[in-house]
Amino acid sequence: MENKLFLYNTLSRKKEEFQPINPNHVGLYVCGPTVYGDPHLGHTRPAITFDILFRYLKHSGFKVRYVRNITDVGHLESDGDVGEDKIAKKARLEELEPMEVVQYYTDRYHSYMDELNVLKPSIEPRASGHIIEQLQIVEDILEKGLAYESNGSVYFDVEKYNKDHNYGALSGRNIDDLLSTTRELDGQTEKRNSFDFALWKKAAPEHIMRWPSRFSDGFPGWHLECSAMSAKYLGTEFDIHGGGMDLLFPHHECEIAQSTVCNGHTPARYWMHNNMITIDGQKMGKSLGNFITLEQMFSGEHEKLEQAYSPMTVRFFIMQAHYRSTLDFSNEALQASQKGMERLLEAYGNMDKLTASDASSFNVQEISDKCYNALNDDLNTPILIAHLFDAVKNINSMLAGSATLIDADLETLKQLMNNMVVDILGLTVDTNGNSSGNDELLSETINLLLNLRIDAKANKDWTTADKIRNELQALGVTIKDTKEGFEWSVK
Amino acid sequence: MENKLFLYNTLSRKKEEFQPINPNHVGLYVCGPTVYGDPHLGHTRPAITFDILFRYLKHSGFKVRYVRNITDVGHLESDGDVGEDKIAKKARLEELEPMEVVQYYTDRYHSYMDELNVLKPSIEPRASGHIIEQLQIVEDILEKGLAYESNGSVYFDVEKYNKDHNYGALSGRNIDDLLSTTRELDGQTEKRNSFDFALWKKAAPEHIMRWPSRFSDGFPGWHLECSAMSAKYLGTEFDIHGGGMDLLFPHHECEIAQSTVCNGHTPARYWMHNNMITIDGQKMGKSLGNFITLEQMFSGEHEKLEQAYSPMTVRFFIMQAHYRSTLDFSNEALQASQKGMERLLEAYGNMDKLTASDASSFNVQEISDKCYNALNDDLNTPILIAHLFDAVKNINSMLAGSATLIDADLETLKQLMNNMVVDILGLTVDTNGNSSGNDELLSETINLLLNLRIDAKANKDWTTADKIRNELQALGVTIKDTKEGFEWSVK
Repeated sequence: MENKLFLYNTLSRKKEEFQPINPNHVGLYVCGPTVYGDPHLGHTRPAITFDILFRYLKHSGFKVRYVRNITDVGHLESDGDVGEDKIAKKARLEELEPMEVVQYYTDRYHSYMDELNVLKPSIEPRASGHIIEQLQIVEDILEKGLAYESNGSVYFDVEKYNKDHNYGALSGRNIDDLLSTTRELDGQTEKRNSFDFALWKKAAPEHIMRWPSRFSDGFPGWHLECSAMSAKYLGTEFDIHGGGMDLLFPHHECEIAQSTVCNGHTPARYWMHNNMITIDGQKMGKSLGNFITLEQMFSGEHEKLEQAYSPMTVRFFIMQAHYRSTLDFSNEALQASQKGMERLLEAYGNMDKLTASDASSFNVQEISDKCYNALNDDLNTPILIAHLFDAVKNINSMLAGSATLIDADLETLKQLMNNMVVDILGLTVDTNGNSSGNDELLSETINLLLNLRIDAKANKDWTTADKIRNELQALGVTIKDTKEGFEWSVK
Repeated sequence: MENKLFLYNTLSRKKEEFQPINPNHVGLYVCGPTVYGDPHLGHTRPAITFDILFRYLKHSGFKVRYVRNITDVGHLESDGDVGEDKIAKKARLEELEPMEVVQYYTDRYHSYMDELNVLKPSIEPRASGHIIEQLQIVEDILEKGLAYESNGSVYFDVEKYNKDHNYGALSGRNIDDLLSTTRELDGQTEKRNSFDFALWKKAAPEHIMRWPSRFSDGFPGWHLECSAMSAKYLGTEFDIHGGGMDLLFPHHECEIAQSTVCNGHTPARYWMHNNMITIDGQKMGKSLGNFITLEQMFSGEHEKLEQAYSPMTVRFFIMQAHYRSTLDFSNEALQASQKGMERLLEAYGNMDKLTASDASSFNVQEISDKCYNALNDDLNTPILIAHLFDAVKNINSMLAGSATLIDADLETLKQLMNNMVVDILGLTVDTNGNSSGNDELLSETINLLLNLRIDAKANKDWTTADKIRNELQALGVTIKDTKEGFEWSVK
């Protein structure tokens, strides 16, 4: 594979070698959350998928400008340009100013992303902060004759666009099928065709989120924000556009149509879509009401949860499936992820104890190549993790004295594990190899206790030795006696 | 004082009883950071001052909408509407898109505010996200004849405004003095008077941050953003406007002039200004280059710092001065704050050990009244803290057996300490009374070690007892032997 990154491009429906527009620079745009509720397990998938892409691109030496937006206006309850604005509805229910709702859930989103060790994007623009830029696109599309005004709103003329372009290029939908399967909905009579989409919506009198325009006091259509903000911060043609598969149609299809009218081409060269998390065979989603929030995941307080799962367990669970496969929620799978991650991190933590020998009994470079090949093959994290478990097996063999590495190979191994586990997979690891944030002092204190236990055993003071062991175990510290002394880990 | 809150109103130059416009609701607007550099000690003062106000108002039962903005455009290097935009300059120096600079320093600001336990505001709007609202104010002021266009820019006509109003109402400046002391500066020739201020600035060709308007492609004047965002989220008349004293003139004076033209009155009823932090007798400020960043404060890595100071020590240091007094940086003062805070938190942590008696030997209600009176007297935190130390003295006497409280009084004392220390002063306290986040497990582990030490002493095993003491001390754990066994704290 020669260290070339291949990514599956939804637009071409095949894996393509990634080649940036500007050497060494990558422009990456990912659709972020609509901030009207707490993030749930489903939201972790795009966040973690594109976090790994961001990390891997940076690891590969690219200078990445990663833009992930906050949708705080214009996202209606239905894709048919009808229903209430999601934020406005939540604000009405909670008797808050819409921007209080936005702030609250944006802060919550950030805090959960921090817990999941998802890196912050380079720019996190808000839709409501780019009304002017969106109105400029509306004017541009109107001027080019591909939109029409109707009762203070402006709609994109899909049928006309489809004459010269392919509306459906990304999603594979066919406009004739759309015509035959869609029907007139309430409030859509101002559209020429039901599949036309809003660029600007006239606000109802009670609608709080509104801005002046020459068409009406209103608000932008949802699909417009990503076209405006990606163009503003990444240019009219950038490298990678990502998002969940549920955004493929109509959201991304509409983005392509808008950009094609304005600039003559699709905004991004590579379109990447993560698949969904399912629960009982259905997509997990806020609108379906079958979601488990991250707060519930981390506390265990949900009827579907047998236990609490740490942020790193959730992260590992997501990475154990390829991002383009569906991933079904189950306690068994999460518990398996937890065990697997602990095994990986334990070996990672034990690498300090490895010493070099005169000969190498296994091929580290081969493991390294396989890891990078997995990443280069459309970010195949489950395969990558399988190869890391090969490394784990070898590390454990070395600890048991049944495998050896020369100094240079040992360095390669350590470097590889650090690159993969910490930098790219983004697992947080303390010096002891635990996944949570126990600090240095705790480590030292437990080490002190266990050294006292060794002294006690040497003095045949079994009472004290047992007391230390039992009390530490009661606190959740697992102790393993080894030739060198002891090992411990915290549950 | 009858539990009425009095606040010093810069506008009236006296302490006034606080009466909200809408019963039980408070609208609070505070000028936030211009995000082009890391926060320094000077930035902690408005953040913590208005955090205490926010906390105390909420504690008093008000529903508070707290708006604190992010200035990400329009803040020029000089107050005279000349010089480069601060964000754009930083972006140019770092070869980044201006919004990357904004995002980076906004994220850093948030993370330091979290460390200082400063609560998040209800809404945190960005100047660049409110260009339309700012342009609407420009139009309004132009229509009312109090602004003029000049070469694509729009300026507020201060002299004309001053004929019917008092430009200087807030700051006490006199326009005639301004006339005689200001002089023509480069690039100001398009102004009628040097003290006129920009509402809209035409952007130079190389200026990246620009938006279209009927005047020019340009950007809003700095003073406009707060007028636009406070009106949008709090209404054209709200309760309290806060900020640092360095913003009093021209920033807040200009806000008042703008709002008075548009709405016929000042935007806020109460204007509160925190004083400056000084260092070597000078205001600490980014533009003066004599600042110590929070990163440096917390790490101790700055030539002026004798040690690292924890976020809670910095917070306590800020609160030990009244917000309207200057506060001089010194290691001595910070070290005294650290000791004082430790004494306070130690007593707070020891309250669990207090037991009720048949009689009360001191008056808890009186201490409580004094604490609330201090807060009600223009948020006099140093006086409040002095009264809390009275409470500490009494708690320590109770621990020593020389003071007593009946059950109801003991409950009042515990409630008072919790209200003041945790809710209002916002000190973070773990179960052990320490100020940093050592977790439960660490506490239990150290307790286990110290119980082993008691066993060792009982067995006259002085070697082990000393070893535990010495090693824990080497790790920074201070141990105090008591009648009941031991107490410990972590440095």
